[in-house]
Amino acid sequence: MWAELLPVGRSSASGGYRRYAWTGADADCRAWFREQAEARGLAHETDRNGNQWAWLGDPAAGNAVVTGSHLDSVPDGGAFDGPLGVVSAFAALDELRGRGARFTRPLGIVNFGDEEGARFGLACVGSRLTAGALTVEQAHRLTDGDGVTLPRAMEAAGYDPDTLGPDPERLARIGAFVELHVEQGRALDLSGDRIGIASAIWPHGRWRFDFRGEANHAGTTRLADRHDPMLSYAETVLAARREAELAGAVATFGKIGVEPNGVNAIPSLVRGWLDSRAADQTSLDTVVTGIEKAAREHAAAQGVDLDVVRESFTPVVEFDHALRDELARILGTRTDLRVPVLGTGAGHDAGILSDRIPTAMLFVRNPTGVSHSPAEYAAEDDCVAGVTALADVLEGLACT
Amino acid sequence: MWAELLPVGRSSASGGYRRYAWTGADADCRAWFREQAEARGLAHETDRNGNQWAWLGDPAAGNAVVTGSHLDSVPDGGAFDGPLGVVSAFAALDELRGRGARFTRPLGIVNFGDEEGARFGLACVGSRLTAGALTVEQAHRLTDGDGVTLPRAMEAAGYDPDTLGPDPERLARIGAFVELHVEQGRALDLSGDRIGIASAIWPHGRWRFDFRGEANHAGTTRLADRHDPMLSYAETVLAARREAELAGAVATFGKIGVEPNGVNAIPSLVRGWLDSRAADQTSLDTVVTGIEKAAREHAAAQGVDLDVVRESFTPVVEFDHALRDELARILGTRTDLRVPVLGTGAGHDAGILSDRIPTAMLFVRNPTGVSHSPAEYAAEDDCVAGVTALADVLEGLACT
Repeated sequence: MWAELLPVGRSSASGGYRRYAWTGADADCRAWFREQAEARGLAHETDRNGNQWAWLGDPAAGNAVVTGSHLDSVPDGGAFDGPLGVVSAFAALDELRGRGARFTRPLGIVNFGDEEGARFGLACVGSRLTAGALTVEQAHRLTDGDGVTLPRAMEAAGYDPDTLGPDPERLARIGAFVELHVEQGRALDLSGDRIGIASAIWPHGRWRFDFRGEANHAGTTRLADRHDPMLSYAETVLAARREAELAGAVATFGKIGVEPNGVNAIPSLVRGWLDSRAADQTSLDTVVTGIEKAAREHAAAQGVDLDVVRESFTPVVEFDHALRDELARILGTRTDLRVPVLGTGAGHDAGILSDRIPTAMLFVRNPTGVSHSPAEYAAEDDCVAGVTALADVLEGLACT
Repeated sequence: MWAELLPVGRSSASGGYRRYAWTGADADCRAWFREQAEARGLAHETDRNGNQWAWLGDPAAGNAVVTGSHLDSVPDGGAFDGPLGVVSAFAALDELRGRGARFTRPLGIVNFGDEEGARFGLACVGSRLTAGALTVEQAHRLTDGDGVTLPRAMEAAGYDPDTLGPDPERLARIGAFVELHVEQGRALDLSGDRIGIASAIWPHGRWRFDFRGEANHAGTTRLADRHDPMLSYAETVLAARREAELAGAVATFGKIGVEPNGVNAIPSLVRGWLDSRAADQTSLDTVVTGIEKAAREHAAAQGVDLDVVRESFTPVVEFDHALRDELARILGTRTDLRVPVLGTGAGHDAGILSDRIPTAMLFVRNPTGVSHSPAEYAAEDDCVAGVTALADVLEGLACT
């Protein structure tokens, strides 16, 4: 199962994955999901927002237990982020059938569409639309780097964009959603545990900093006559690191766009994107306010205009306490492993859905902490422990 | 004449010009040049390296006087950089015919190909090849951002790349080359003069700084675990400004490439290009050595690898003293204008050719100093003064 998915959307140059929403690689992932469902005799459907579902039992019966994750990737992402949760879902079902488990609740396996937001710049589009956390009008305005809108990309992939929108009936049938995911930091590695349960997702957001200066000749323009936005950008990158260190948070400038981007031209525009997250809202506000203040001071000193736009924001997400405690109780009775509870800085579909339905997450140890990189890794033993833990949880929740 | 050229290759979005070598806009510029030559009864040819020539009289007679410049542009460049020299060449010929001047030497008007290097990253390709300052092998390896090589781009434009190479016979027939160009700084504006004569071109070069770190998740990777090349880049941008200020030179990071360039990914690679120039070689060495030293220190502290590659370098160019003095003498007898002699930080085809044939340059005042920008400007009066001065010079050199 894993072996068939591994080559899909993999770049021979970087070894990383480029599975972007509504591309050929995405279609291949979706075909793989369909085959896995059919091989197990599961009913299969794609919902109005492009999320894929496989069902054991009739979801119309309600109180379904759903597990799964996503199959798309960031640019040059790793093999585990997303796919591990979907592969583990099918593997856990196989394990439960091997155990002879009898299901008393419908079981769903899901592949949420466009979780990473690599193509249209907004993460978790499939779950946001379903939860009503992204309006249809906002979704229609999403545009990729080539100017292709989300509706046109869906059409080109053979899907109907007119069906996009909130799906409360679907959510009403789900009693619990459990997402298994490779950890994206080193907390489990540092504590020496294979498996963890999520407590909360840090609040996080993306801000676009547009520094506008004056394009000019790099060889003939006196330093005193320059309005060079690259200097303001550089000062801001360093300020972001300082502010994050002070607050025990993270802040990153990982994406940049420069105009005209010529070797011998002082730029007219440097556009930098800030990603920042912190354990609580107050810390995050402090970090971002500090970065913006530093950026404005440096821009003003250099005669550079600055616009700061918040492109997305997700408040702190506390996962359902009752479901979290239930997972801890189930795993406590069925495994000898210690299963710590830990927070995370990464966003997930489970976070988006958490204010509509009870959600929980299981993390599998990441020995290097490396994520969103071809070097992302999880040991086979730990992945197997993840499948077993997920099977235990599903059995505890959905079987007699 | 000027009006016909103005719309060619102009971006409606920026108002700037995008006339890159061997593109459709370049072909339109070449058609314009051919029409101007034919309208004046001049013989027309494109040489083996893609430079266009128009001739009054037989160049085989030798000791020709040549004027002209280039028609291509940087990304979103201005209307004057290059075209002013070609338009003024044709206008000066018209002026001399109006004066009834009788030519005793062949007169050539030239449009050098790919002066700005916007597409293939190397400036003055046409004149470098002609002078033997760029080998055929090097030219064949030039590749644009889409992976198209120079030979394939020439072929696609209908030219034969197999003819590329040094052209000493052509250069041997030229007794003097005078290039008129809009000034790219504010020296004439500050001194209050319409026209200047070039003394020298500052030594200048381009260096590529490859900072390689470790791609990772921007939300979950602890600051202490990061190897973020964007931080090393930012420190280096600021170091470049400091070093240039100390040396009275210029240093610019105007072009950047980031991988994977995702909002929530710490970059694996930040590639920045440094353009630096100074009045003399020692100052330039001091600046670049200082920048590289700072870059290495910051990269090492952040666990980032750094490669620095010098992509191009042009030593100081002193224009021919005898020709320069001759220009000053001619203008001194024919105009009341003061014509100062000044250096420049910009490279030109005249600089490339200066160690093969006697070359000189005339500058026209730039009231804002803005260059390589849609806002580049020269006043009509000053352009007319430039045409008159060029006509005076050509008459003094080539007419009885």
